[in-house]
Amino acid sequence: MVTRRDFLRSSSATLLGAAWVSKAGAATLPEAPVMDSAATQRPHLPPNGRPYNPVVTLNGWTLPWRMKNGWKEFHLIAEPVKREIAPGMVANLWGYNGQSPGPTLECVEGDKVRIFVSNRLPEHTTVHWHGVLVPNGMDGVGGLNQPQIDPSKTFVYEFEMKKSGTFMYHPHADEMLQMAMGMMGFIVVHPKNPGFMPVDRDFVFLINAYDIDPGSYTPKVNTMLDFNLWTWNSRAFPGIDPLVARLGDRVRIRMGNLTMTNHPIHLHGVDFEVTCTDGGWVPKSARWPEVTTDIAVGQMRAIEFVADAPGDWAFHCHKAHHTMNAMGHNVPTMIGVDQRKIVKKINQLVPEYMTMGEKGMADMGAMEMPIPENTLPMMTGRGPYGAIEMGGMFTTVKVRKDLARDDYKDPGWYRQPKGSAAYEWNES
Amino acid sequence: MVTRRDFLRSSSATLLGAAWVSKAGAATLPEAPVMDSAATQRPHLPPNGRPYNPVVTLNGWTLPWRMKNGWKEFHLIAEPVKREIAPGMVANLWGYNGQSPGPTLECVEGDKVRIFVSNRLPEHTTVHWHGVLVPNGMDGVGGLNQPQIDPSKTFVYEFEMKKSGTFMYHPHADEMLQMAMGMMGFIVVHPKNPGFMPVDRDFVFLINAYDIDPGSYTPKVNTMLDFNLWTWNSRAFPGIDPLVARLGDRVRIRMGNLTMTNHPIHLHGVDFEVTCTDGGWVPKSARWPEVTTDIAVGQMRAIEFVADAPGDWAFHCHKAHHTMNAMGHNVPTMIGVDQRKIVKKINQLVPEYMTMGEKGMADMGAMEMPIPENTLPMMTGRGPYGAIEMGGMFTTVKVRKDLARDDYKDPGWYRQPKGSAAYEWNES
Amino acid sequence: MVTRRDFLRSSSATLLGAAWVSKAGAATLPEAPVMDSAATQRPHLPPNGRPYNPVVTLNGWTLPWRMKNGWKEFHLIAEPVKREIAPGMVANLWGYNGQSPGPTLECVEGDKVRIFVSNRLPEHTTVHWHGVLVPNGMDGVGGLNQPQIDPSKTFVYEFEMKKSGTFMYHPHADEMLQMAMGMMGFIVVHPKNPGFMPVDRDFVFLINAYDIDPGSYTPKVNTMLDFNLWTWNSRAFPGIDPLVARLGDRVRIRMGNLTMTNHPIHLHGVDFEVTCTDGGWVPKSARWPEVTTDIAVGQMRAIEFVADAPGDWAFHCHKAHHTMNAMGHNVPTMIGVDQRKIVKKINQLVPEYMTMGEKGMADMGAMEMPIPENTLPMMTGRGPYGAIEMGGMFTTVKVRKDLARDDYKDPGWYRQPKGSAAYEWNES
Repeated sequence: MVTRRDFLRSSSATLLGAAWVSKAGAATLPEAPVMDSAATQRPHLPPNGRPYNPVVTLNGWTLPWRMKNGWKEFHLIAEPVKREIAPGMVANLWGYNGQSPGPTLECVEGDKVRIFVSNRLPEHTTVHWHGVLVPNGMDGVGGLNQPQIDPSKTFVYEFEMKKSGTFMYHPHADEMLQMAMGMMGFIVVHPKNPGFMPVDRDFVFLINAYDIDPGSYTPKVNTMLDFNLWTWNSRAFPGIDPLVARLGDRVRIRMGNLTMTNHPIHLHGVDFEVTCTDGGWVPKSARWPEVTTDIAVGQMRAIEFVADAPGDWAFHCHKAHHTMNAMGHNVPTMIGVDQRKIVKKINQLVPEYMTMGEKGMADMGAMEMPIPENTLPMMTGRGPYGAIEMGGMFTTVKVRKDLARDDYKDPGWYRQPKGSAAYEWNES
Repeated sequence: MVTRRDFLRSSSATLLGAAWVSKAGAATLPEAPVMDSAATQRPHLPPNGRPYNPVVTLNGWTLPWRMKNGWKEFHLIAEPVKREIAPGMVANLWGYNGQSPGPTLECVEGDKVRIFVSNRLPEHTTVHWHGVLVPNGMDGVGGLNQPQIDPSKTFVYEFEMKKSGTFMYHPHADEMLQMAMGMMGFIVVHPKNPGFMPVDRDFVFLINAYDIDPGSYTPKVNTMLDFNLWTWNSRAFPGIDPLVARLGDRVRIRMGNLTMTNHPIHLHGVDFEVTCTDGGWVPKSARWPEVTTDIAVGQMRAIEFVADAPGDWAFHCHKAHHTMNAMGHNVPTMIGVDQRKIVKKINQLVPEYMTMGEKGMADMGAMEMPIPENTLPMMTGRGPYGAIEMGGMFTTVKVRKDLARDDYKDPGWYRQPKGSAAYEWNES
Repeated sequence: MVTRRDFLRSSSATLLGAAWVSKAGAATLPEAPVMDSAATQRPHLPPNGRPYNPVVTLNGWTLPWRMKNGWKEFHLIAEPVKREIAPGMVANLWGYNGQSPGPTLECVEGDKVRIFVSNRLPEHTTVHWHGVLVPNGMDGVGGLNQPQIDPSKTFVYEFEMKKSGTFMYHPHADEMLQMAMGMMGFIVVHPKNPGFMPVDRDFVFLINAYDIDPGSYTPKVNTMLDFNLWTWNSRAFPGIDPLVARLGDRVRIRMGNLTMTNHPIHLHGVDFEVTCTDGGWVPKSARWPEVTTDIAVGQMRAIEFVADAPGDWAFHCHKAHHTMNAMGHNVPTMIGVDQRKIVKKINQLVPEYMTMGEKGMADMGAMEMPIPENTLPMMTGRGPYGAIEMGGMFTTVKVRKDLARDDYKDPGWYRQPKGSAAYEWNES
């Protein structure tokens, strides 16, 4: 699913300064892999460098790198992308290397990294490495720490990963618009000591939101509050893959919020603790037992728990509107109103008209209402017992006693010691 | 105030599976007490089972149970209710056993509970036991963990209360609508060891919000942000009872948030700590001193403090709009505008027209403005020194040196060792 | 910049009770200094009383006091003010002693304080001392703890500062309106023991928000959500002074939130800990490492870090809309739309019309668009590398190795042991 575009041919990088890539230098740029799928990709087993237990990016992937004289070299391409939000809906977003969010960057504490950022957007951009302790000139605030990266230019960031933890990257240029369009990605820095805070499963995703009118494809970029698509890694239920764990696994889920409001993330079936923020690891003495962790905008949280109860456990934002897809605001309350006579009259005008909401809205989860093209139903999804009546920021953590897999010896798999892929929806 | 409806006659429960109540089985259902008052009820002294110090539900009550072969059996009825929000306003809500929120369920760590849920709503429902560690099939997510409970059916939930703590119940079916209509209730599981975290006073309530247009009775169910009634246990100031404590009491207040936004709950007069969440008890080493605790949606927080300062202490959400009742948005600012000439002209058309806001809006707290039927004034309430100018999520914690009570030996009272009822507004 | 208005002549204080100032007593009122500048003022070195290391109020000042028989006497005047939000915009607000927010009150643990509050507003007011443990009658909730302070009256508050910490003052009368108009101020109580939690730099500010239509001067006072001016101490970028520290300084920044929503405050370049809330000092065992702290409404947070990385570090609210100035909501997305033909047609009607947003909105940060009078550009500010494209709640923490100052021996300066003034924008 990863394709290798010939970046060099289309690049017109020119020498602008120490941190800019010259035309000559472009010939030595690392490859820029591109992802064409919104499915959860297999964990990326590190082919070189320090070993680590790779993460699973929910409906995403990890960017391959090359080693060069002791530096890990990554190549990000900022560009317009088409992202499938869920089957039946595609959005015109901006992202990196073919998808929004961009690929996860995985490193190890102490790694020296060099990240080439090529701009294929119609306007300038920068990249800020949120939570990573970098020299001031590498901090990525356009105008303050560096000049903007103009279209068709490539800028090089270089720094050392001083500490392990949970970070993200996003532009600090025309920031509101570029984040509203989907530009963001996850960074995980694994500890140098593999015995530090080990887990069996390590999932990551970013929390984002879009305002896309039903029937259209491009987000409105000035929305402050009234978003209508509440997504995890630019996916909405039922488009979000489940998180699969083996019974008894210690599981970590890392999340970062780049919307405009707090998201109280709730997990059924277990108690958990927050063990890591974008500022570092939380000492044991300071942790609270929780079932809902409130993640503020620009915050990252890793939660950890032992998957000690088998079954399909709901995992969602607890704001009820955020587990709905694009919905009609200002829909009048019809509870208690007998609409039969009204419908008869309307049907003379609009034969396919159906009443809705006279007894609540659960009907909408079960029936097929006519909706505009490229629009997800407000409530949807089916489980083993019928309609789940959810949307948006909802998926399940599936805890299974036995996980069958053909390719258990797959090397990319080896580092997830006990289990199966996150993208495996295993009903039994 | 508790009435005992003949549930059996109106129930048409039929056998659908292990967890469903058959028509025959319906004859053995526990009684379903119903509450017809919105006043704070006296603490429910446990008549059997393990002993505990009962909680006081603010403007609510605790559901009685029956013991059967070692199981505590409760009977919840999901149904439309009429709830008095404050004197002068009644809302058409959905709730349980006659009120919204439903009754508090009180148990003890280790209790085996069986909860019959009968559906008298016009649409299907389920119950999710938020924060309680239950088997997957009892988790209450419709479609995922169980079939929906159709109207007129009864479903039985069975599980053990594995740990003490602070929990709640609410539907996980047509969730946005059913919670917007008021379906929710509190669960307290007392520790098996009565010496664990003891307090003298233990209050509980849920934070909720409604969007009811002035002059109307039924909430709009699709509102995401612009709610106009900010309530505690479906009550608004001055309809919220005070929380009364004796000087020197150790007081716990447990709250859970089922609105669409964070509520920063602020208490005057003391510092407090959060000692419990819906995930468990917070270790001493992890606690912060606070005067305002931000409760996110789907979170529960117990705060504790020693009532060491006598007097009436304001207790409220710190978002200023949330201590107002239904208010006109987009009211223009009249500060600094001399309206005398304008009023003269308007009065020729509307004789009763009054100017407002030219010097601020404090007038609105003191004067009687004409408002639509079934609508609370925006700012209201009177204290010993005049108009309090509040609404919504506001009440007082009243700390008194001497609390006189005739019925101090009332058995229901015995377990609140030092004091008087929460619903006692003791001015002296 | 401090002027000394003759308060006595204009005061008509009359005897209303123990806590009211009589006409005779008015002659002995302390002076009421007034500030006419929105610039950060030099730290106020205590001329008497217990010594302490003074704070720097961002774009603000500390109120001088007089000692009288062992009491620190302050004089606050509630009054309409004109506040410069940033160069190019002035707002008609309500505040104290000439500015909004009012001056910072600095005391020492154990101080007995007497605060005279004179009301020059057109409506009544009170003052609540948020977080300070006061007797019930001094708590300032109008109607509940005291009668309202009518226009032209003076009320006296007296209490002891029982504990050190981070507090604020604001009205508890017509509260929504008076806070929407800017009435608030900071309180710092320094520890009696100067060796307790010492820092080199100690900055304070309040987080507030206004809804002022482009082209107008007075806030709309009923806004619940759609604010368009997101400010720190009633200042918006580029009007917010930088926070300057010397390399290696231990820095504390204290913030309090009096808006209607959470603000996740993000600092680049360092990790920090929250060390103090309005409830007290956070024990070391309970602290989390952070780069973004979410401050809820009615909460105060002090963050601390060592300024160990030189450079200009962005410091801002992480909600992208809050780093923009008054913006057009509902601006359509023009990304991907070729507007050349449309513009040609429009230009026949409106010659000065420009296209915008076809390739993003970064143009708006760099170009000069015609905007209404008294209105700040949506994105603005220039740094060493070009347009910064920010607004609202954005400034920088400037960490410098060498800070040159002529007046380093200034006594008001002496207590900031290692450095220079916060208002010094030192480019080198």
